[in-house]
Amino acid sequence: MTGDSADLHSAAMSDRLAADTLAPLTGLPEWKRFALVAQTCASRTGVLDLIEAPGLTLDSSGQRHSPELMAAGEALLRARDFDTQRARLLAGEIVNVTEDRAAWHTLLRAPEAPPEVQAERERMDAWVQRADAGRRWRHVVHVGIGGSDWGVRLAVTAFGYAGTWRDVRFVANIDGHAIEGGLAGLDPRETLVVLVSKSFTTAETLENGARAREWLMASGLDPAAHLAAVTARPDRARAWGVPENQIFQLWDWVGGRFSLWSAVSLSTALAVGVEVLEGLRAGAAAMDAHFAQAPLAENAPVRMALAGVANRSVLGQGSLNIAPYDSRLANLVPYIQQLDMESLGKSVDVAGRPVGVPTGPAVWGMPGTDAQHTFFQWMHQGSDGAPVDFILCREADHHWPAHHRQLLANCLAQREALMRGKTLAQAHAECLAEGMDEARAAWLAPHRVHPGGRPNHLIALPRLSPYSLGALLALYEHRVFTQGVIWGIDPFDQWGVEYGKILARGIIAELDPAVSQAHRADAAGPGSSAGGRPGAGHDASTRHWIDRLRG
Amino acid sequence: MTGDSADLHSAAMSDRLAADTLAPLTGLPEWKRFALVAQTCASRTGVLDLIEAPGLTLDSSGQRHSPELMAAGEALLRARDFDTQRARLLAGEIVNVTEDRAAWHTLLRAPEAPPEVQAERERMDAWVQRADAGRRWRHVVHVGIGGSDWGVRLAVTAFGYAGTWRDVRFVANIDGHAIEGGLAGLDPRETLVVLVSKSFTTAETLENGARAREWLMASGLDPAAHLAAVTARPDRARAWGVPENQIFQLWDWVGGRFSLWSAVSLSTALAVGVEVLEGLRAGAAAMDAHFAQAPLAENAPVRMALAGVANRSVLGQGSLNIAPYDSRLANLVPYIQQLDMESLGKSVDVAGRPVGVPTGPAVWGMPGTDAQHTFFQWMHQGSDGAPVDFILCREADHHWPAHHRQLLANCLAQREALMRGKTLAQAHAECLAEGMDEARAAWLAPHRVHPGGRPNHLIALPRLSPYSLGALLALYEHRVFTQGVIWGIDPFDQWGVEYGKILARGIIAELDPAVSQAHRADAAGPGSSAGGRPGAGHDASTRHWIDRLRG
Repeated sequence: MTGDSADLHSAAMSDRLAADTLAPLTGLPEWKRFALVAQTCASRTGVLDLIEAPGLTLDSSGQRHSPELMAAGEALLRARDFDTQRARLLAGEIVNVTEDRAAWHTLLRAPEAPPEVQAERERMDAWVQRADAGRRWRHVVHVGIGGSDWGVRLAVTAFGYAGTWRDVRFVANIDGHAIEGGLAGLDPRETLVVLVSKSFTTAETLENGARAREWLMASGLDPAAHLAAVTARPDRARAWGVPENQIFQLWDWVGGRFSLWSAVSLSTALAVGVEVLEGLRAGAAAMDAHFAQAPLAENAPVRMALAGVANRSVLGQGSLNIAPYDSRLANLVPYIQQLDMESLGKSVDVAGRPVGVPTGPAVWGMPGTDAQHTFFQWMHQGSDGAPVDFILCREADHHWPAHHRQLLANCLAQREALMRGKTLAQAHAECLAEGMDEARAAWLAPHRVHPGGRPNHLIALPRLSPYSLGALLALYEHRVFTQGVIWGIDPFDQWGVEYGKILARGIIAELDPAVSQAHRADAAGPGSSAGGRPGAGHDASTRHWIDRLRG
Repeated sequence: MTGDSADLHSAAMSDRLAADTLAPLTGLPEWKRFALVAQTCASRTGVLDLIEAPGLTLDSSGQRHSPELMAAGEALLRARDFDTQRARLLAGEIVNVTEDRAAWHTLLRAPEAPPEVQAERERMDAWVQRADAGRRWRHVVHVGIGGSDWGVRLAVTAFGYAGTWRDVRFVANIDGHAIEGGLAGLDPRETLVVLVSKSFTTAETLENGARAREWLMASGLDPAAHLAAVTARPDRARAWGVPENQIFQLWDWVGGRFSLWSAVSLSTALAVGVEVLEGLRAGAAAMDAHFAQAPLAENAPVRMALAGVANRSVLGQGSLNIAPYDSRLANLVPYIQQLDMESLGKSVDVAGRPVGVPTGPAVWGMPGTDAQHTFFQWMHQGSDGAPVDFILCREADHHWPAHHRQLLANCLAQREALMRGKTLAQAHAECLAEGMDEARAAWLAPHRVHPGGRPNHLIALPRLSPYSLGALLALYEHRVFTQGVIWGIDPFDQWGVEYGKILARGIIAELDPAVSQAHRADAAGPGSSAGGRPGAGHDASTRHWIDRLRG
């Protein structure tokens, strides 16, 4: 699908050349124009700015928006060759240039997926249907971390919030308490352990999997019968002891943080049904088509990306808050956090130069109304607050309309308060109206001022269907990609996570009382070259803690 | 305990006068000196900087630290009259000046708590012990939000991670799916519903409580027998239908985000035992004594506060990451998020003037190693990253030493990578060592550079005992208080949460098809004064969504 390796290599060469010719963002007249217009554009909450996209409505009225700003944004995108970049992404070309890879997750949900994708999907669906027919696996322990975890957690929480007949547990962390809690109280005879790792080398997943396998064996069971795996390296899963027919495949051209669209969602299918996966894919495919075809001014991911770049690189907002007003979407926050921060948490462009402006923000959040009782004080009156993506579902799936009205009203009210603000004169009048004397009112009023003018998006789903959730996730994927194009960075690599892994390997050996002094010296990592003794290169504090924590 | 109301009023008057005489921070020579020294202080990771405090060790080696900076910090604290402010906090005086209240949560954990506190504690313990003896309440549904929720979630997750014989569910959000999921599958005969609201007027808690009560009645049960309440307004709980002997009290001088130390932890006691509460209180009390007595340079909360102010107000860091390397501490993140952001998310000082420097940061995070697979890319290579509080437990409570070694090694390694960084020359050499040709190495190396020098704390608990967790929470409480003293703000009020609540009330009525047009006009809130028609004052977008969402 991605061509043979000679093709790949020559494509990579030409991509690298293209990367080398990328102009520095801050030198572009189109950037200067965009920054100027964004800086001076008044917020115009009086002017409605809606896009009806597949599966959802995007309201950008709470962002800076104007015909001039849109024109400047379009010019900027043209200067970044956005049309070509988008076409290359969707055609499965090498858009992950630093790793010489495609990022073709859109293919996994394409209406006409290629035969090998189709075949793997059908094999998995059939396997799940057989398990369902036999009422097999009352417990599923999903073992995976990061991109092998969040998408499944998100979908299972979204659609299984009131329980399913299968109890699904998630074990991600290397912390032994995670696997201990994950297995506690389960009946091993009724338990399926699903190991998810693209490389099938992820330390957390293999260690936790080993504990689960021991637990199965301790019950006198044949562990092979209770293990499934999802990986791009079926050979390694087989060698680890997972039977061939319980290994499902993903591909090298699927990044971890985009792998929800593959067999990584096996546990989702077991928990809430294969039709949920079908709905997710259909919604995402519809959003892919919208992203490919809609004019830029009416293109939801593009509009969100332009607002994101303006907020971060022009207006200086350091973070982005995700506020789903739906308790079933609690795991949307870490999902988008990973998608956005792993993709855009980089400071050099594909030509290796500093981007020159701040790139990806910190992404954080919590479902409303919980968030209101946790940190909305800060959103309203803190030094700079944060732009907010409000997300709501027009219809609920429960039978208490008064709850849903209160939920929606809270969402609209918080958003209105953030946009509108409250002046000192209003606060003062309010204090007097509450019966305070003039002295107290004058003193207290400044504490009740809200600056207002905080930027936001409102994303409205008709209801929380798999289709609308799929569209929502693809919206964020393409928003992130578009910001990557503007900043000129590779949103698909993650070089920054390697360094800590290498240092950890050395420290694990140094902490192990069974490893000799000499071996520790060898294993002490990059720092060890600085001197003869083990870990001589560590700073004083790291040295102190290694010595103190050695078992 | 807080004196009669005449005393209160005169105390409040003198506090207000004191507030009026507070000097503007940025005008203080001590501030200018602190800012200058913090700005120019090199990071000195070669110099160990440890404090052995009750229940934990604080390592500040990863922050800017030097004798000059400490001296400047001490002078700044003196200029802010810190000794007096701290004494007033701990003596239960009116430190919450804008609300005329004490913030005397330390009294709840004092070794010699006053008789009424002691009596209420004993009454609750006895009630829990009777329930335990009778094996009553296999299911507990804890209904509360914000400060009535996070502390209990934190403690139950920390100490009940592998399950307890009681199944505890948490229902906070007004979203009807929350209460639906919270009750699903439970046996009402075996269920206790615990309502927690200081005012007993919290919309979320009363609405969710009403659904739980209906659910109990629908099973033919007398709901009163299955309801407990924790509140500062027992009269309201009684009127709502909770029997007298199942109502536990907190007091007006306990803020919601400090209420874990009160009967709010009833569900914790039911889930993991009253001895957990005793341990938490003992650890917190020991930290209170440390905060009161330790010299400033060896005072853990004070040192964290000075680093926090330097990072935020001098070095411009907009957020703070909390990274507990213990999966049982997942709920520590929202707990500290609320504590910090509700307390410090304010921009005016007690005299009503702008503080003049950025105050409380966005607080966010996730347990490591999950965090490494989610957003550590951004921490390492993003535009500005964030200061990190790493938290680890020296000993684990499971039987897999290799897991614990890997967990600790990952914590130390991520921290080391963030401090040390990796230069272009190192990255280039690394690429060549991996066998790349010179052209590719030169091109790829910039993508593998880590700037380093990211500030951090390391907090090490001997193990995750109630005592050490109690000390940890008190450490953060006093760190937050001290930052409030430096910035001159009232960390105990939360005026910013009121405005949205008022706007929500109007919009709820506007969304209700049963409320007439005329009533809607009355209810439309502050905006309605701007015109005759309902909600005339809403911006175009809010107006659009109210019309579109009206049921």
